[in-house]
Amino acid sequence: MSRGSLLYAQSGGVTAVINATASGVIQQARTRKVRVLAGRNGILGVLREELFDTSKEAIADIRALAHTPGGAFGSCRYKLKSLDEDRARYERLLEVFRAHDVRWFLYNGGNDSADTALKVARLAREFDYPLTCVAVPKTVDNDLVATDCCPGFGSAAKYTAVSVREAALDVAAMAETSTKVFVYEAMGRHAGWLAAAAGLAGEGRDAAPHLILFPERPYDEADFLQRVQAVVDRVGHCVVVASEGIRDADGRFIADAGGGKDAFGHTQLGGVASHLAGRVQERLGLKVHWTLPDYLQRSARHIASRTDLEHALAVGKAAVDYALDGRNGVMPAIVRTSDAPYRWIIEPAPLEKIANREKTMPAAFIRKDGHGITAAARRYLTPLIRGEAYPPYGADGLPKYVALKNVPVKQTLDPFDP
Amino acid sequence: MSRGSLLYAQSGGVTAVINATASGVIQQARTRKVRVLAGRNGILGVLREELFDTSKEAIADIRALAHTPGGAFGSCRYKLKSLDEDRARYERLLEVFRAHDVRWFLYNGGNDSADTALKVARLAREFDYPLTCVAVPKTVDNDLVATDCCPGFGSAAKYTAVSVREAALDVAAMAETSTKVFVYEAMGRHAGWLAAAAGLAGEGRDAAPHLILFPERPYDEADFLQRVQAVVDRVGHCVVVASEGIRDADGRFIADAGGGKDAFGHTQLGGVASHLAGRVQERLGLKVHWTLPDYLQRSARHIASRTDLEHALAVGKAAVDYALDGRNGVMPAIVRTSDAPYRWIIEPAPLEKIANREKTMPAAFIRKDGHGITAAARRYLTPLIRGEAYPPYGADGLPKYVALKNVPVKQTLDPFDP
Repeated sequence: MSRGSLLYAQSGGVTAVINATASGVIQQARTRKVRVLAGRNGILGVLREELFDTSKEAIADIRALAHTPGGAFGSCRYKLKSLDEDRARYERLLEVFRAHDVRWFLYNGGNDSADTALKVARLAREFDYPLTCVAVPKTVDNDLVATDCCPGFGSAAKYTAVSVREAALDVAAMAETSTKVFVYEAMGRHAGWLAAAAGLAGEGRDAAPHLILFPERPYDEADFLQRVQAVVDRVGHCVVVASEGIRDADGRFIADAGGGKDAFGHTQLGGVASHLAGRVQERLGLKVHWTLPDYLQRSARHIASRTDLEHALAVGKAAVDYALDGRNGVMPAIVRTSDAPYRWIIEPAPLEKIANREKTMPAAFIRKDGHGITAAARRYLTPLIRGEAYPPYGADGLPKYVALKNVPVKQTLDPFDP
Repeated sequence: MSRGSLLYAQSGGVTAVINATASGVIQQARTRKVRVLAGRNGILGVLREELFDTSKEAIADIRALAHTPGGAFGSCRYKLKSLDEDRARYERLLEVFRAHDVRWFLYNGGNDSADTALKVARLAREFDYPLTCVAVPKTVDNDLVATDCCPGFGSAAKYTAVSVREAALDVAAMAETSTKVFVYEAMGRHAGWLAAAAGLAGEGRDAAPHLILFPERPYDEADFLQRVQAVVDRVGHCVVVASEGIRDADGRFIADAGGGKDAFGHTQLGGVASHLAGRVQERLGLKVHWTLPDYLQRSARHIASRTDLEHALAVGKAAVDYALDGRNGVMPAIVRTSDAPYRWIIEPAPLEKIANREKTMPAAFIRKDGHGITAAARRYLTPLIRGEAYPPYGADGLPKYVALKNVPVKQTLDPFDP
């Protein structure tokens, strides 16, 4: 083993393949003879000096991480503020790094994590502490700039397209005497990438999904209801995919429509699909069903995309190489070099370009009528859901997901409450 | 081809594998040189003389039905009443059968369909019309008597167990700073079979799902909230699986709690998971997420159980054999001859024993505390979700589901409005 350790931490919402990235990181670091420590519950564990020693894990388990969803070391939603505002926390990070001879820091998350990695890199430079910081991309929202796509998105996109195709067959078979309108709620508070992926389930005017509602377009109830009725009149049923982030003309999130009282007098939670379904039932008098897949869509490793898995492994390995090569303040980005055949490479992108920015759907990906995807969107999306990458299953009929031992590293510092 | 046709119709909610049964029916009938007609949208199409001639379909497409969810000919929710009340409709059925020389009638559905098949058989006998009626089992609810399990259930059960295992990993990874309680709503208005299947996702006191709510047990809010809090205190998070059919001590369906007004002043739709999540948030102040998979759980052919697929094909083939052998008024039932190794055979069960009856979870399958499954339940359930049976995928990353040509048979009768 080389002198010094590499510290890896997961941040934000986990995905079906963030552990594949962890697997790539640890395998590559082992190849390069570097010990990997992992933060328990992300940066929180680093601040608390709660670190796991991944060298205690069997290689078979590290490989099995590549087919295990969730976050193997725990993740967190915890954003460090500016260097000035959060000085004590940033300095604590350096203190922990010093105590455990951490020379390379890999932060696996979205744009907040890229921002944190950048700030840690700056502080280390200021303190003359030899540290190389690399951000590793991950998010089902696909909203990171400077990378063609984000690991985690492709698998959630595949789940979405497959689920919508399957449910649409169900609805079509039953529509005459049962449900006429089906509403699917896709994740994406600010960007409609997952809703767009649903568009891959069918092609053509009468194929499901018949209507997609993007957060990039204002939601107009009268227009929506009219479109639903028109599709039902023409096709016999209507499959709607709505992004959780749609807002009305006043900028109110439709998802926030809940909060009233239910028939039992209790506060009722909201949701876009539930709201839209209610409007369809009340205004159009059509039988309606809706689905809120919620976490199922981002943890569905059983229907992961092979492309996505390959991306996730590759960014993990590249991040280790960048770190050990001293490329400070970068993120391995996926660069598409060809649509058909689909070809991609990994290249370093500077964190300054990524931190705190957000990539929404380009206008050229949304159909003119605002309710479907274009051929350009299909060209972009299709390779990302291509290929299957099934986990192994046991005789119990369930995927064999691994649980690591997560052996804690001995603490040497005073406690710290983040 | 023999003289006479076999008429096949699908009834009630479709499943991931009802088309596999159709595939089994048509393949076996072809082997035995009998033409199969199919009702468009189930019995409604039969009443309207809207029949498809399956002999026009390529054998490759008939085979592909076995991996295609939905209902290839359409299904319906339409219950025929007693022979006296619905005399005109029953007689119309016989008229259609006569017009198309239908000598064998296969009705693929739940207990309502078994009842209809039985009545049609009686009427044919009364009119001296030579007809053999066979019911073919299907339901994700697994509530048919006289069969060990129902085709469709195993795949929905596998979807449920896999999804809960995956989402639980997500919740566990994020619980410290994000969602503490996750609620999964499983289908099952009267019987908790699918909720029970979620129990396969984990075993032991601290493994998800931590709490299962069965319709077979009254729902007590105070007790529920106390249990949730206790699990969160002990484990750090709590995964709840609730059957859509749970009712309070007054017999009110919790799913009917909706119907109040939302924050925008609109009628809000209900749901068990949404209600429970609201109570957890309001009373315990814990961050909560919930999922309503709805139709996704019964159409998820991509995660079908191989056992279930084999059952679905086998009952289709057996139904044809029973029909052609003149075994009137029966249903091919799945009989378990051994748990481990799992062994089963198909045997005819008389429709009198099946029609209008419902099988709920035996008390021996529900843990003493009412919120989990027993070892006996695991022994029963595990073989049903065992084995994978993936559909083929295209280069577009999506399953290749078949759409039949559905060539209509020429109509010869006067129109009939059911």
